[in-house]
Amino acid sequence: MGKETELKKADYQPIEWLDGKVRILDQTLLPREEVYLDLDDYRDVASAIRELKVRGAPIIGIAGAYGVALGARKINADNTDDFLKNLENIIDTIGATRPTARNLFFALERMKQATVKGKNVPDIKKSLVEEAVQIHREETDATHHLSLFGAELLKDGWTVLTHCNTGPLAASGYGTALGVIITAYRQGRKIKVLADETRPLLQGARLTTWELEKAGVPVTLITDSMAGYFMAKGGVDCVITGADRIAANGDTANKIGTYTLAVLAKENKIPFYIAAPVSTIDISLKTGEQIHIEERKAEEVTRFQSVTTAPEGTLAANPAFDVTPHQYITAIITDKGIIKESYLEGIKRVL
Amino acid sequence: MGKETELKKADYQPIEWLDGKVRILDQTLLPREEVYLDLDDYRDVASAIRELKVRGAPIIGIAGAYGVALGARKINADNTDDFLKNLENIIDTIGATRPTARNLFFALERMKQATVKGKNVPDIKKSLVEEAVQIHREETDATHHLSLFGAELLKDGWTVLTHCNTGPLAASGYGTALGVIITAYRQGRKIKVLADETRPLLQGARLTTWELEKAGVPVTLITDSMAGYFMAKGGVDCVITGADRIAANGDTANKIGTYTLAVLAKENKIPFYIAAPVSTIDISLKTGEQIHIEERKAEEVTRFQSVTTAPEGTLAANPAFDVTPHQYITAIITDKGIIKESYLEGIKRVL
Repeated sequence: MGKETELKKADYQPIEWLDGKVRILDQTLLPREEVYLDLDDYRDVASAIRELKVRGAPIIGIAGAYGVALGARKINADNTDDFLKNLENIIDTIGATRPTARNLFFALERMKQATVKGKNVPDIKKSLVEEAVQIHREETDATHHLSLFGAELLKDGWTVLTHCNTGPLAASGYGTALGVIITAYRQGRKIKVLADETRPLLQGARLTTWELEKAGVPVTLITDSMAGYFMAKGGVDCVITGADRIAANGDTANKIGTYTLAVLAKENKIPFYIAAPVSTIDISLKTGEQIHIEERKAEEVTRFQSVTTAPEGTLAANPAFDVTPHQYITAIITDKGIIKESYLEGIKRVL
Repeated sequence: MGKETELKKADYQPIEWLDGKVRILDQTLLPREEVYLDLDDYRDVASAIRELKVRGAPIIGIAGAYGVALGARKINADNTDDFLKNLENIIDTIGATRPTARNLFFALERMKQATVKGKNVPDIKKSLVEEAVQIHREETDATHHLSLFGAELLKDGWTVLTHCNTGPLAASGYGTALGVIITAYRQGRKIKVLADETRPLLQGARLTTWELEKAGVPVTLITDSMAGYFMAKGGVDCVITGADRIAANGDTANKIGTYTLAVLAKENKIPFYIAAPVSTIDISLKTGEQIHIEERKAEEVTRFQSVTTAPEGTLAANPAFDVTPHQYITAIITDKGIIKESYLEGIKRVL
């Protein structure tokens, strides 16, 4: 990677391990306030994930791993059996926060396996901290690799449409979809971004604009309902989003509204890319139909922050994700390379 | 129309002529507050239209006509030439408020023509009031007719997805798309509605839920980005929206996001209907490409009512409408009957 392609280190740290506590940037308060929270209890990490203070599939995995490491440190057990029983509860609590993002379960699985590295309780505790730090490092490196692979797909002068937030806030390092975009821009191509605001929680309006402005990439905010208008007008050269879980056949769960973008892209003959580390892939699921979609509370739809929009008592649905069938996806950009067309084989190859 | 199909008169009056003033229900304050504004100056009517205190293509036409009648009453002119010159300015002011809704220009055209009915200034003033009242009456009747035509298309047990607001608030009488839905429901079919919240101004969340709850029709609110999810899941039997301007070939401008719904409906083999009075049709435009799309201010996108969502200085686009090409439209429901397929001939027939 030459000097000209190097990203400046972000002037914000979405997640950091500080010997015995994990520091997160509270994403619910952005862009208004930049508040860091120091958490030393795994239950606080679980709450932070549940309440989206830390969000984005890859970073949920990192936060979950640190949560386990924190919880493990405080287990008061003399023998490994008791210790592992307690640890199991901690892992279950963290795993119960958000069901869709694969990376969380990938990280928890690795943390479980890391327990065999220690011979006694103090040893295992140490191994768990090391494993969490290692997961953080690997996920960060993965964003560097996938960003460089993906940047090759973006041509000079392109307008790229994206959805939700997929920068360093969501994935550490460079980010996923946003990492690809920012990398192409830093490599000297004139890239412009159309950012969907991403209702209900407005991660696009609040976080993607904030990250792109820090990176110096020109961005125009639109409502989710405007994406089709700009595609039909010829104003979009490609769409890139992140992913929360990718099935063995390439079907991809991502933030609600992603499927709609994929259908619009197909109709308007625009490439539609997914960018995600391989830790997002779940080969235990044959197709996207098996992906569990988190249903969040109705209030996120009937209000935004302090503003209530609908009459009191209005029913609302709130599926947080949707599934884009693989046939709508032009390519999946991973840290192990770009997968095209025959996803079943391509996915096996990168894993 | 039998008794069982009759709609109860709404317990709210979106627009009313009260001898020398026009009373409107301020739609920007709904559903929180039900505030009526009495306007006796045409400039206040123009502001009310511009600021969306009164909105929805058919009702903008009615409000525009009343605005002209109000303005005419206050013209101080001894001869018809001076009077008509003054009137021209008033019509221009009202016509400059919102460019896309055809019904406004349809109504203003009729008001211009009505001036020939009077021999002198007092006579013309009287004719203009009568013409405005007549336009209001005809537009109201049109919603009754189109609602009855359209209701035939909706089957028992259907879930109907709609966008923006198209009830009495938007069109007087029964409304357009919502008139069709409410009429089918009153005729005894178990209809459920999925209502898009309709960013940026949330007419779906604020107004459609409010009107459907008053009509007793079960409604679930969703964000615009969720429509595709529910269609793909098999949870939507048809889509109906209103229209702001329909070209001679059936291409239809409607609230931003409508084109996206039409593409999603086609992809999922779901009927997509437009409901509008013939006053929305503009045969002077061959295709939708000629429809002028209003671009509103960026702040409607960078904020969510009183809450600012994006970092200060973020650029935003805000096209208020998009155009759905006729090939995506299963049928156009008008007060003169339902038009299918060959729109060019069908539209000529109903006009």
